[in-house]
Amino acid sequence: MADTPPSLLVVSAHAGDFVWRAGGAIAAATLRGERATVVCVSYGERGESASQWLAGKSLDEIKAIRRDEATAAASALGADIEFLDAGDYPLLESTETVSALVDVYRRTQPTVVLTHPLADPYNGDHPAAARMALQARVLAQAIGVANSDGSYPKVDEIIGAPPVFFFEPHQPEQSDFKPNVLLDITAAFALKQKAMECLPAQKHMWEYYTSLAIRRGVQVKRNAGPNLGLPPATDGSPTMGEAYQRYYPQVTDVLA
Amino acid sequence: MADTPPSLLVVSAHAGDFVWRAGGAIAAATLRGERATVVCVSYGERGESASQWLAGKSLDEIKAIRRDEATAAASALGADIEFLDAGDYPLLESTETVSALVDVYRRTQPTVVLTHPLADPYNGDHPAAARMALQARVLAQAIGVANSDGSYPKVDEIIGAPPVFFFEPHQPEQSDFKPNVLLDITAAFALKQKAMECLPAQKHMWEYYTSLAIRRGVQVKRNAGPNLGLPPATDGSPTMGEAYQRYYPQVTDVLA
Amino acid sequence: MADTPPSLLVVSAHAGDFVWRAGGAIAAATLRGERATVVCVSYGERGESASQWLAGKSLDEIKAIRRDEATAAASALGADIEFLDAGDYPLLESTETVSALVDVYRRTQPTVVLTHPLADPYNGDHPAAARMALQARVLAQAIGVANSDGSYPKVDEIIGAPPVFFFEPHQPEQSDFKPNVLLDITAAFALKQKAMECLPAQKHMWEYYTSLAIRRGVQVKRNAGPNLGLPPATDGSPTMGEAYQRYYPQVTDVLA
Amino acid sequence: MADTPPSLLVVSAHAGDFVWRAGGAIAAATLRGERATVVCVSYGERGESASQWLAGKSLDEIKAIRRDEATAAASALGADIEFLDAGDYPLLESTETVSALVDVYRRTQPTVVLTHPLADPYNGDHPAAARMALQARVLAQAIGVANSDGSYPKVDEIIGAPPVFFFEPHQPEQSDFKPNVLLDITAAFALKQKAMECLPAQKHMWEYYTSLAIRRGVQVKRNAGPNLGLPPATDGSPTMGEAYQRYYPQVTDVLA
Amino acid sequence: MADTPPSLLVVSAHAGDFVWRAGGAIAAATLRGERATVVCVSYGERGESASQWLAGKSLDEIKAIRRDEATAAASALGADIEFLDAGDYPLLESTETVSALVDVYRRTQPTVVLTHPLADPYNGDHPAAARMALQARVLAQAIGVANSDGSYPKVDEIIGAPPVFFFEPHQPEQSDFKPNVLLDITAAFALKQKAMECLPAQKHMWEYYTSLAIRRGVQVKRNAGPNLGLPPATDGSPTMGEAYQRYYPQVTDVLA
Amino acid sequence: MADTPPSLLVVSAHAGDFVWRAGGAIAAATLRGERATVVCVSYGERGESASQWLAGKSLDEIKAIRRDEATAAASALGADIEFLDAGDYPLLESTETVSALVDVYRRTQPTVVLTHPLADPYNGDHPAAARMALQARVLAQAIGVANSDGSYPKVDEIIGAPPVFFFEPHQPEQSDFKPNVLLDITAAFALKQKAMECLPAQKHMWEYYTSLAIRRGVQVKRNAGPNLGLPPATDGSPTMGEAYQRYYPQVTDVLA
Repeated sequence: MADTPPSLLVVSAHAGDFVWRAGGAIAAATLRGERATVVCVSYGERGESASQWLAGKSLDEIKAIRRDEATAAASALGADIEFLDAGDYPLLESTETVSALVDVYRRTQPTVVLTHPLADPYNGDHPAAARMALQARVLAQAIGVANSDGSYPKVDEIIGAPPVFFFEPHQPEQSDFKPNVLLDITAAFALKQKAMECLPAQKHMWEYYTSLAIRRGVQVKRNAGPNLGLPPATDGSPTMGEAYQRYYPQVTDVLA
Repeated sequence: MADTPPSLLVVSAHAGDFVWRAGGAIAAATLRGERATVVCVSYGERGESASQWLAGKSLDEIKAIRRDEATAAASALGADIEFLDAGDYPLLESTETVSALVDVYRRTQPTVVLTHPLADPYNGDHPAAARMALQARVLAQAIGVANSDGSYPKVDEIIGAPPVFFFEPHQPEQSDFKPNVLLDITAAFALKQKAMECLPAQKHMWEYYTSLAIRRGVQVKRNAGPNLGLPPATDGSPTMGEAYQRYYPQVTDVLA
Repeated sequence: MADTPPSLLVVSAHAGDFVWRAGGAIAAATLRGERATVVCVSYGERGESASQWLAGKSLDEIKAIRRDEATAAASALGADIEFLDAGDYPLLESTETVSALVDVYRRTQPTVVLTHPLADPYNGDHPAAARMALQARVLAQAIGVANSDGSYPKVDEIIGAPPVFFFEPHQPEQSDFKPNVLLDITAAFALKQKAMECLPAQKHMWEYYTSLAIRRGVQVKRNAGPNLGLPPATDGSPTMGEAYQRYYPQVTDVLA
Repeated sequence: MADTPPSLLVVSAHAGDFVWRAGGAIAAATLRGERATVVCVSYGERGESASQWLAGKSLDEIKAIRRDEATAAASALGADIEFLDAGDYPLLESTETVSALVDVYRRTQPTVVLTHPLADPYNGDHPAAARMALQARVLAQAIGVANSDGSYPKVDEIIGAPPVFFFEPHQPEQSDFKPNVLLDITAAFALKQKAMECLPAQKHMWEYYTSLAIRRGVQVKRNAGPNLGLPPATDGSPTMGEAYQRYYPQVTDVLA
Repeated sequence: MADTPPSLLVVSAHAGDFVWRAGGAIAAATLRGERATVVCVSYGERGESASQWLAGKSLDEIKAIRRDEATAAASALGADIEFLDAGDYPLLESTETVSALVDVYRRTQPTVVLTHPLADPYNGDHPAAARMALQARVLAQAIGVANSDGSYPKVDEIIGAPPVFFFEPHQPEQSDFKPNVLLDITAAFALKQKAMECLPAQKHMWEYYTSLAIRRGVQVKRNAGPNLGLPPATDGSPTMGEAYQRYYPQVTDVLA
Repeated sequence: MADTPPSLLVVSAHAGDFVWRAGGAIAAATLRGERATVVCVSYGERGESASQWLAGKSLDEIKAIRRDEATAAASALGADIEFLDAGDYPLLESTETVSALVDVYRRTQPTVVLTHPLADPYNGDHPAAARMALQARVLAQAIGVANSDGSYPKVDEIIGAPPVFFFEPHQPEQSDFKPNVLLDITAAFALKQKAMECLPAQKHMWEYYTSLAIRRGVQVKRNAGPNLGLPPATDGSPTMGEAYQRYYPQVTDVLA
């Protein structure tokens, strides 16, 4: 895929997931001048909007709020955003939603894909979104699989085999999440911070995910740099990190 | 073991490990008026004392420093402490060290045992200490296994089958650490804080492990209490937690 | 969930499953004066009623027989029972059945949930029931998820995060069932025995599950009490046990 | 290995293990007129002889008792038996013991090997014996590895690659034991019964292992024969079974 | 199932899968005079027919081509073949397809079943076919489960519990495929070669799967025969192999 | 480790292992002008030299032959080579050998480390070498761990935390080897071919490992490039590959 321009595709079950979990990777890509596209399969209107329900908002009002927040956050990260409005709690797998995702793949021609891991005992929507993201990625490769409008793709409209990375779930060990890629997001963190601030109803999450970025940043240093046997430094201006799990083998011509 | 008074035994590879990883559980026990004993298999004099080596201290000086710090920390937690001085980096498994641990088991008659998990790709001393702790626990049960002085135990000197909990390693996912017990240490955290402050060379770790306790505390709430679908609160006076992995099945007469 | 009265919810794929696999836990709860509710997702009318089919009964007759037997067994255990009649062999996952289970969760406000494990190469209905039980538990927590009649729950009608225990499948090792809780059901076994006797067509199972209870009881003793290195005693009046696998981490303030 | 006469080799950590765990397989082999050899790496004199220690026997007396019992049990099964007297609790791995096992392999030319599984959280001697049995099997294949007397083997003295089966540990799920072979020992069970009766100090184990054989026999039928969806019959004259875990892939020219 | 005549059933997601992956096992069975039946759940018309799509063929033409090729290949192997035409990319699980498979099981009374493994990150149709094959196998055992025409089976029309073997996926390690059966197909390979040649559009695969058969054949020898510590011979007329993973425990009365 | 010049360290249990398993990665490094060092922990004189034993060579003669062959192969790859002569079959872990490896790490300052995976049911020497390679890597990082001559390292003599890659064992699935890195060695294959030809006693292995490189090369293409749903091309001038398993998480600032 050497000639394909870099294009990042992020498949997010709910409207806010991509901010907390992959905001650093998205900002890092757009800071390099690359294209990034976020697809929110649902708004998280039923399962992740308790404060709005408690405030007496209607379903449509809640969807609109979540849409606006996510749009602002994507904008802060420099990314495009699309909404499939497939419903949440539960997010049901359907051929329609998969077909919509096939269209997205063929339109954005991603060179990297980010989505949720395949297990999450706390929220079944996350794995459901991931399964559809993975299925659509395979279908989008096949010239015999039609687009959602029934037309067939041309040869240059089908996609290759972009690598897939799972972003970190809320309770990683319970979700069988074993990070095998630690991403340095130090330079991108200011943008992630701005994106988080687009979600004011979850203000207490800002600190939580800043703390997580420091923790993953310590591991970035521990797994990479020289190590005097000293405990990891967390003060000063720390390295910030995000953890990912690569789903397919890395293909490379240099071990590093 | 209904009639046995509660007795907590903590087997720590290096002099500081028990503070960061199990200080909350130890303090919680002593706050309940229970006995707690820490055994440091080594001082961590070679592998976990880089700042002292850089400062030009001798091996004996470093051991003495680590011993004093650990003694102060145990005291802050209300626990007894013993040192086996078995050497570190590498901590070698030996029949002598195992036999010394058998003596400790028979003397302290533990009703709960804490130690390192069995895998740690970053530090082989931790699993080595854990393997010896587990082996000694089984040997101490057998009336035909002699004490280290060659004498044989009386019937009431052998031990039962106390549960074993692994405490959290520095990089949990890489060490196949999947917590199955989340311990609420909110009430005990002030003592853990004091114990951490007994290790001044690792001041930056104080913040790191406070942050981890908040993170595990969020999970305590998420896995236990009512959950409005709201993001976890981390401000105010948070719940503090420590994560453990139970090695043997829990035995109980009430599911809860 | 300190203020919630204890309430046990058992989700059983077929009408008889809860008796063999969880009868001891149910009786132990009701003997403590706690509420227990059994939900049978199907009657097991096609897949677990061969003797009635061989006797020429009709589908409706078989359902009635299974319903009567299960009702009698639940009564012997002191538990309430409900039937969803969702069909078996195969038990199909559906939004209707999940929604019915959401109602049950909100009505019974369980503090403990028991169901089948997530793998069973011998019977796909068991994992299907478990997946729906787990999904409904998460949905019932969300204030934005409607009840089956379309109404929305009040704040005190949504549920917390009750622990989930998988009960033992027929071929545990093949079903990746690794018990991490061994429940002492000695005091409750007489009631389990009575409940088993409500299922006369499976008389040979009475002995089979009595033998299993003895076997799990040996493990209760082996993992808990003092152990002289002696082989487990199985004669006299033995300890009886049931094995469970906890799905979420245990939350506690005492390690034991 | 078509031309090699059948020869069964059983490597047992302690003097009694082979009786309870593999007695059926041994008797089945000798009933077919095949050779069977049991090697007891230790007598189990410290860890599995509590009743003799309580009775005040000396170490040498206990070894003699265990040796006599095991010899009688092997005789009842029609097997040869050897004792390496390598010590137990702990059974230490050593080059001497491995070398002695290499000699046994070359002398007995086994076509099938039975030993303990590689994990047992309740008894470290079992995995230690298994590791040595496996290591010796590989060394015995190499013409450049000397016998214990320093001589080198001739070409026809080295061994092939006999299949290895792990027999069932006391707590199978905790020992990661997943049976992939269910052996029908119905015809051989009477001999196993006789062998068990050679171990009178463990009389209560007779019933325990008879019950286990019935349980594994139910699985023999469930995994093999026609299945009317009826519960397994356990009355009448039941099928008796033993469970094994094959370590290397099965080589065959017929799938069955 | 001693009295049942041997009958091999192969459930293949797409029209060509059975040739590459199980051609040796099928030919070995028919060479022994046994019955073999292949069921192609789909033609692989969308996902595995890129060259025909590129050549401008219509969907119906492609299906016909794939059907003819598969029919010729089955004939070369001596097997019957049936097509369910359930659609591919994605192959959707449905009660209709499962019911059609139940009919096949009852009609062919298989003593051995071959299908895809349950994981394949590169092609979701393979696990979907496998799940349906496994579900249908269980349903076909139950006398209360109707045939697809609504009639109920007679007692001798339901099936027993035939062993299931997964055949090798294209990227075995990524699909969690751990072979536990290595099948010697040396004698059958000539027929597999002929069957592969019935698929001329995939000529380059002929060499690929011949090379794989040599590789698995080396493992047949390594795991079975005498082993002088020499590297495996791959020249001359090599042993040819296919790898399988047994899903249920093997039931046997001889360990070998 | 940005300022450290690239340095590849390969720890090989026996004299030939590095050629078959990592020859491509070594040649790729030296073709880029980087330093590569091979350490053979033993000569493989007992376990992997059967043809010489059969030819009546003495132990010393065999060692010399293996040494010469390995030296020639390393030279063909452009790598330095060292021999620790620690003995094989079994390769025993010792503090001396670990200490010698610590010296090598500090001298060569590796930026990448290659060694065997941690499991191999066919050859215990491979995991033993890997365990020592991993242990030495951690010890070499600690300023308090002395060199083998008793001197202590200066600050710039200790090493950082280089990534570790396991190379492919002979039977990957049985050794729990799951490749997560596929290395394109097309350009380096000619040098690997030359290195293989330095081992004339294993001429049949040349073809075997060429075939494996083609197979892994197909996976390089399948996991990376565009994929028309066509079967992998293996004719013409194929992509050649080697498979690796990364032990620690990858640290990066770009997901790709």
